[in-house]
Amino acid sequence: MVALLVAGAFGLVFTLLGTPLFIRLLKKLSWGQFIRDDGPETHHAKRGTPTGGGIVFIVGSVLGYLVGHLVATGVPWTRVGVLVLAMMLGMGLVGFLDDFLKTRKQQSLGLGGWSKIAGQVLVTTVFAVIAINFPDENGLTPASFAISAVRDIAWLDLARFGTVLGVILFVLWVNLISVSVSNGVNVADGLDGLATGAAIFAISAYLFIGFWQSNQSCFNEQLDPAVAFKCYEVRDPLDLAVVAAAIAGSLIGFLWWNTAPAQIFMGDTGSLGLGGALAALAIMSRTELLLVLIGGLFLVVTGSVILQRAYFKATKRIYGQGRRIFLMSPLHHHFELKGWAEITVVVRFWIIAALFVAAGVGLFYLEWVSR
Amino acid sequence: MVALLVAGAFGLVFTLLGTPLFIRLLKKLSWGQFIRDDGPETHHAKRGTPTGGGIVFIVGSVLGYLVGHLVATGVPWTRVGVLVLAMMLGMGLVGFLDDFLKTRKQQSLGLGGWSKIAGQVLVTTVFAVIAINFPDENGLTPASFAISAVRDIAWLDLARFGTVLGVILFVLWVNLISVSVSNGVNVADGLDGLATGAAIFAISAYLFIGFWQSNQSCFNEQLDPAVAFKCYEVRDPLDLAVVAAAIAGSLIGFLWWNTAPAQIFMGDTGSLGLGGALAALAIMSRTELLLVLIGGLFLVVTGSVILQRAYFKATKRIYGQGRRIFLMSPLHHHFELKGWAEITVVVRFWIIAALFVAAGVGLFYLEWVSR
Repeated sequence: MVALLVAGAFGLVFTLLGTPLFIRLLKKLSWGQFIRDDGPETHHAKRGTPTGGGIVFIVGSVLGYLVGHLVATGVPWTRVGVLVLAMMLGMGLVGFLDDFLKTRKQQSLGLGGWSKIAGQVLVTTVFAVIAINFPDENGLTPASFAISAVRDIAWLDLARFGTVLGVILFVLWVNLISVSVSNGVNVADGLDGLATGAAIFAISAYLFIGFWQSNQSCFNEQLDPAVAFKCYEVRDPLDLAVVAAAIAGSLIGFLWWNTAPAQIFMGDTGSLGLGGALAALAIMSRTELLLVLIGGLFLVVTGSVILQRAYFKATKRIYGQGRRIFLMSPLHHHFELKGWAEITVVVRFWIIAALFVAAGVGLFYLEWVSR
Repeated sequence: MVALLVAGAFGLVFTLLGTPLFIRLLKKLSWGQFIRDDGPETHHAKRGTPTGGGIVFIVGSVLGYLVGHLVATGVPWTRVGVLVLAMMLGMGLVGFLDDFLKTRKQQSLGLGGWSKIAGQVLVTTVFAVIAINFPDENGLTPASFAISAVRDIAWLDLARFGTVLGVILFVLWVNLISVSVSNGVNVADGLDGLATGAAIFAISAYLFIGFWQSNQSCFNEQLDPAVAFKCYEVRDPLDLAVVAAAIAGSLIGFLWWNTAPAQIFMGDTGSLGLGGALAALAIMSRTELLLVLIGGLFLVVTGSVILQRAYFKATKRIYGQGRRIFLMSPLHHHFELKGWAEITVVVRFWIIAALFVAAGVGLFYLEWVSR
């Protein structure tokens, strides 16, 4: 409990005070984001807003976690907490390379699509291999071979396919989650504060989930025997909650500066880092499929891009000329072109993100109640 | 659990679909809000936006509660739930008279300050008298004579002063809470979506508090004996959570239309109604002093008005000419005049409101953990 509070408060104060300093630094380095030419025209006014703000909240999250954990337990970390942050850092680094190339080359493209994915796959694969090793005294590894929904699904245990195939399938599965989510957050990061706010809700879900799993852990000695039959087998769930608190706190402080009109963007550094953190939290809390709800908004906006492209290609093949479902994808630009003010789109998408998260957390809790 | 979900979902869908219909109706009646002449000049553009939107979410809250309660339990209500909604309706009616007079008289003033307070006092006093009577089978009345923080404080029991004085002090105390909170929400309702968003956070706190009190109720037969010593003596706490869910859901759907640029304002109907609901929830969940945190934002903006006036009067007496602390009060207008965009003020005030609520709920839970 103390660890949660300290981690969240530290992250909050760090980004609240640190972001304006970082903005000043970036302006000195004249490191402005170049707005994509494929966005709505009104966005061209945003040229010159510094990017790479993800650096501030990634650093805030790491420090918040270390300080919170140290104050509450006397040791600075556990493997589970470090794994989430390592994934956030690794993905953030891939994003940083992209941001860096964009601003250096003075163009909006950065890393090519495929080399970005290669970087994500590399980081995720290292994460997957570490997360499935190093069992603790209860024999629990940080991640498990089983595909999980609100907890591990026994009959979807990839270990059934034998060691070699099992590991391969597991690595593929973890990569699928991690690449999808990090690109999802990346796509959602198109309007001031949109991705930051949506990520605050999604990450906060893991604050609750980790906390509850820790209360109802099979290895919690004070567990009420009447409900022990439905305890959770998760490695260090409270640690997941502490990381989530540190990230959520850091994001709230960052949102202060990132909300409309944004004084800084998170950049790919931020969006890929957040996606990595969300994926790691879902994988290690054994709630992988639940991420469809918890990250529901990211899924919807990414889905709109995929749908738009697929429909365009299909109609082009049939009619000779491509047709579109949305005025523009991702979805938030569609509504802008329909005449919604940018901030209206943002707040309404926040509402949708929050409702998705409420549904996800509600389902998680309902499973426990009704078991 | 089912009651919470149904109540929240019903309220949400009701206001999401009902608000645009209501806007169309109001436009036909040409019932537009007249913007206060003492606000910043940019606000004069808002002339013509319909007001009285509180009607939609008050109706949504009442129906959401009734439907949720009926579906889950087979009976439509309990006394506690009805009392919260009656307070919301009564206060909303006082606000409605004000809104009505404003639009009819084509001026922004409405009811005089004192007749508005007289209305609030009347509604609150009726509430107080009913809430302290009608004990249930456990001998619990909806409210108690004790002043409460996170639960009733035994040594601050107003009943100690004897029946007559006790009742008088109790009615005064309940009026103090209720008039303060409803005017607080009223003052905060000056920027698009500000009061709505802040109220969503505050009301949601009671969703958690009521739910937790119900789990840990002294009259819960499945209560874990190991923690029974710190159980809560609250009348029908789950019912408080169901009302809170209905109100929060209704507010979320309303925010969809009320966020910048607002297509409708809640009016005094909405802000006084919400204040009444918050006060009733705090009083009956026995968390009165905690409302200082849960409604922290409302307190801060109201405080800024009081401070500004007091300082102006004091300096006028000393220097012959009044001085000001803020460029303009309430506080949100101060920041607008300092050059923050309206939406920046709103999102930052939402963040502050959410942090206050997190502190309040955290303190509530911490008291239970550390007892």
